[in-house]
Amino acid sequence: MEDSTAFEEVARFVRQTALLETTQAVLEWDERTGLPQRAGAYRAEQITHLSGLIHRRRTDPWLGEALQGLVDSLGAGATAGPSDNHPEAVDPRAASIRRLHKEFLRQSKLPVDLVQAIAKATVLGQQAWERARAEDDWRAFEPHLKTIFGLRRQEAELLADGGPLYDALLDQYEEGARSDQLAAVFDDLRKRLVELVQTLSQAPRQPTGQALVRPVAVDRQRTVSRWIAEQIGFDFSRGRLDETTHPFCTTLGPHDCRILTRYQTDFFASGFYGTLHETGHGLYEQGLPEEWFGLPAGSYCSLGVHESQSRLWENFVGRSRPFWQFAFPRVATQVDGAWEGLDSETLYRDSNCVRPSLIRVEADEVTYNLHILIRFEIEQQLLHGNLDPCDAPQAWNDRYAAYLGVRPTSYSQGILQDVHWSAGLVGYFPTYTLGNLYAAQLMEAIAAELGDSEAAISQGDFQPLLAWLRNRIHAFGACWPPAELMQRATGQSLSAEPLDRYLRNKLYPIYGLNG
Amino acid sequence: MEDSTAFEEVARFVRQTALLETTQAVLEWDERTGLPQRAGAYRAEQITHLSGLIHRRRTDPWLGEALQGLVDSLGAGATAGPSDNHPEAVDPRAASIRRLHKEFLRQSKLPVDLVQAIAKATVLGQQAWERARAEDDWRAFEPHLKTIFGLRRQEAELLADGGPLYDALLDQYEEGARSDQLAAVFDDLRKRLVELVQTLSQAPRQPTGQALVRPVAVDRQRTVSRWIAEQIGFDFSRGRLDETTHPFCTTLGPHDCRILTRYQTDFFASGFYGTLHETGHGLYEQGLPEEWFGLPAGSYCSLGVHESQSRLWENFVGRSRPFWQFAFPRVATQVDGAWEGLDSETLYRDSNCVRPSLIRVEADEVTYNLHILIRFEIEQQLLHGNLDPCDAPQAWNDRYAAYLGVRPTSYSQGILQDVHWSAGLVGYFPTYTLGNLYAAQLMEAIAAELGDSEAAISQGDFQPLLAWLRNRIHAFGACWPPAELMQRATGQSLSAEPLDRYLRNKLYPIYGLNG
Repeated sequence: MEDSTAFEEVARFVRQTALLETTQAVLEWDERTGLPQRAGAYRAEQITHLSGLIHRRRTDPWLGEALQGLVDSLGAGATAGPSDNHPEAVDPRAASIRRLHKEFLRQSKLPVDLVQAIAKATVLGQQAWERARAEDDWRAFEPHLKTIFGLRRQEAELLADGGPLYDALLDQYEEGARSDQLAAVFDDLRKRLVELVQTLSQAPRQPTGQALVRPVAVDRQRTVSRWIAEQIGFDFSRGRLDETTHPFCTTLGPHDCRILTRYQTDFFASGFYGTLHETGHGLYEQGLPEEWFGLPAGSYCSLGVHESQSRLWENFVGRSRPFWQFAFPRVATQVDGAWEGLDSETLYRDSNCVRPSLIRVEADEVTYNLHILIRFEIEQQLLHGNLDPCDAPQAWNDRYAAYLGVRPTSYSQGILQDVHWSAGLVGYFPTYTLGNLYAAQLMEAIAAELGDSEAAISQGDFQPLLAWLRNRIHAFGACWPPAELMQRATGQSLSAEPLDRYLRNKLYPIYGLNG
Repeated sequence: MEDSTAFEEVARFVRQTALLETTQAVLEWDERTGLPQRAGAYRAEQITHLSGLIHRRRTDPWLGEALQGLVDSLGAGATAGPSDNHPEAVDPRAASIRRLHKEFLRQSKLPVDLVQAIAKATVLGQQAWERARAEDDWRAFEPHLKTIFGLRRQEAELLADGGPLYDALLDQYEEGARSDQLAAVFDDLRKRLVELVQTLSQAPRQPTGQALVRPVAVDRQRTVSRWIAEQIGFDFSRGRLDETTHPFCTTLGPHDCRILTRYQTDFFASGFYGTLHETGHGLYEQGLPEEWFGLPAGSYCSLGVHESQSRLWENFVGRSRPFWQFAFPRVATQVDGAWEGLDSETLYRDSNCVRPSLIRVEADEVTYNLHILIRFEIEQQLLHGNLDPCDAPQAWNDRYAAYLGVRPTSYSQGILQDVHWSAGLVGYFPTYTLGNLYAAQLMEAIAAELGDSEAAISQGDFQPLLAWLRNRIHAFGACWPPAELMQRATGQSLSAEPLDRYLRNKLYPIYGLNG
């Protein structure tokens, strides 16, 4: 009873901090949906001030003492385990206490000056990136990159406890992940993918991808995007779909999830798959237990798990044959005749066109991970001081030539294409490939448990799939670290095999190859 | 030197508070530009939490002591007067100190619980109003109105110091204004306007207003609105134009002014004049001294002065003959032929069509003030407890019948049409009519000083007019109370005569009457 009161007090305090965190998210969402050109500096001040208030609350000594008391009385796990007979049940209260305590200890290592310096540098960095990318001006961005990596390195040094600096940052995005273990799986994956790309390039049949570059007016794409987001289950009474330069998904409250995409008249796939991807993130956010909003039990588990949801809907569903059997005739009526003469099989094939390219967010499922590995390698070098920022564009271009056989001819199509580093997100990229690996494992588990879901999907019934994800992933919030959540949901540990298997099973027939 | 340091410290503190105030303004802007349906309750919590933080800063004892010290050392006005030889020069530092001190004393009378209760009740009130208006459901809104007036009455009792409760609220919007003095001028105005409406209704020529209800596609109206806002001087690198249910203008930073309008296909005037009106507000905000942002010397003087700017651009400029000589041919090319067969003279006449109606924001320049007087009377009765909220719709409808000769047949077209009371804005309505009176006085002063500006306007040159407003109104921020600012700018004190004169001079010829 006493503990329960203490927990309620902690929960109230942490939920109040969440009011400020989500307010900061509103400021950031607004910044990326059309902030007036000259308003950036003041917005940075607003965010910086708020981040200071938030950090003071996160490291409030009262909170630390209260959490320590709660952790102590959890003891050796007596109340931390399953709270009923279901083997996967978990006590969200105990799990939240553990995670909050860990987060408190981490935050307490960081001085508020550093936290505010990072907040300010990354807001200004994103603004500089936006301009630099538009003007293809690496030199204008380089000093920001240098500052940001310098600050994040300071942070990593305070957090690392003698371990690898990179892992100290990675842990914030993917609790418990280690770069050496990732590198091993990623190496295996790279070998398989490079071989697969080569096999496909010599295959007898080659999808052209032409269907997805037929011009479609932007306002038609908007209608289609909203429609498909609704079809797969996004609840617009609890969210919005907007437009931005670099698509993302953010949560501003328990019933306020914002997804953002971008449209190009002559690249339908960009807006459509961008929407499916962000909607996948949004479905996860909307599926988290709302009564636990603001606490770990009501928050996403890790970025890798988040990405598994977005990639699952974007690729495993959205580039499947039954999906296009459902979607083709319905989209075709909404695009003013642009899809005349096409059929669902063509859309299926053209949405599975594997071809090395320069832009990550427009890459196919196979080469996508090679884009990620390049970033994973370069950001480790930058953080550890093994690569000077002024040499980074060269390193970027050389790796593109080596892994993908293509070489950027501009910064905008090269190192300036992604927002992440400008936003201070170092250690974030590998979670994208983790998401792909997780998604493949989830789909195998779903197939084993639900049997064939293709018939339902070809009828536009995405509910069985979503329900499985709700029950086995979303419902548990951040009660377990990602490796444990995935192990429980799929019975497997991390491996490159399921993804490799899925890709070959799908692509060989499309490319006229025997499995 | 010592004082100067003390002032710098106060200024830094107050500017940090402004970071939170403008953050709250972002939350409110976002709430009114498409908040997901179910996100309202959490948004109210965010705003409530922030309003508590802001109130604690505004009433911080350190701030009170520092301000008291600064006020004491200002002495009997030695450093508070003009700082150079210009008769209208003012010391923005001294003026800011005086105003901040007054504001501190006012805020300190209010307990944080009451401030937060008002913040929460008004956010929820606005959400309830939005639904109630859409569903024409007065009963759903009535309890909110009761709560809000009850809370504002509590506030007024704490602030009034034995004076009239209503004036304690009015003073927040229009410093130094007194309801008995306003009532005297408003009575004079009402007699003149009622007579004018009657005279016009029997005039030999009657403009039809048909030009402004020709259907124009909303996306064309958007283009026109953005164009006209730019023409009169709105700086889009420091602001945005968006859409909402109830048009408004808000400032989120020194270079971030947001104006909002709404469009109806078959009512061009609504979007067009809504835009001109809010742009007038925006020009004032963009004209305030940016180096004083967050302090009184960089803030608007009063709501009445604010409204004088919006009404000046909307009506005195936007419904003038030279304006339409400039705008007609340019708008006509942007509306897909909708204005075929029209000419600038028709637009001029049709934008000056006086006709009693139900909706304030769509009312003409003459009857508009009668809409305001009705609200001014009813809100005083509600606040003083002389009218039960359940009787308010009847009181509303009866007054419309008496003053305007029209009777609402629905709540949405009657008492539910305005957002103000749901937002806690009691004492706000009279500032609209004050704005009209001020604008008429300003235009007389401008004519006397600049001579004929019609030629410039008919060429689309709005600069001389804007420059005068910048120099004589905008530049002074809130350094003087509104009555003093207006006296200095126009050499006149408040009176109904200039507005009456302006209206008759313009309308008699249009209506075929002799002056």
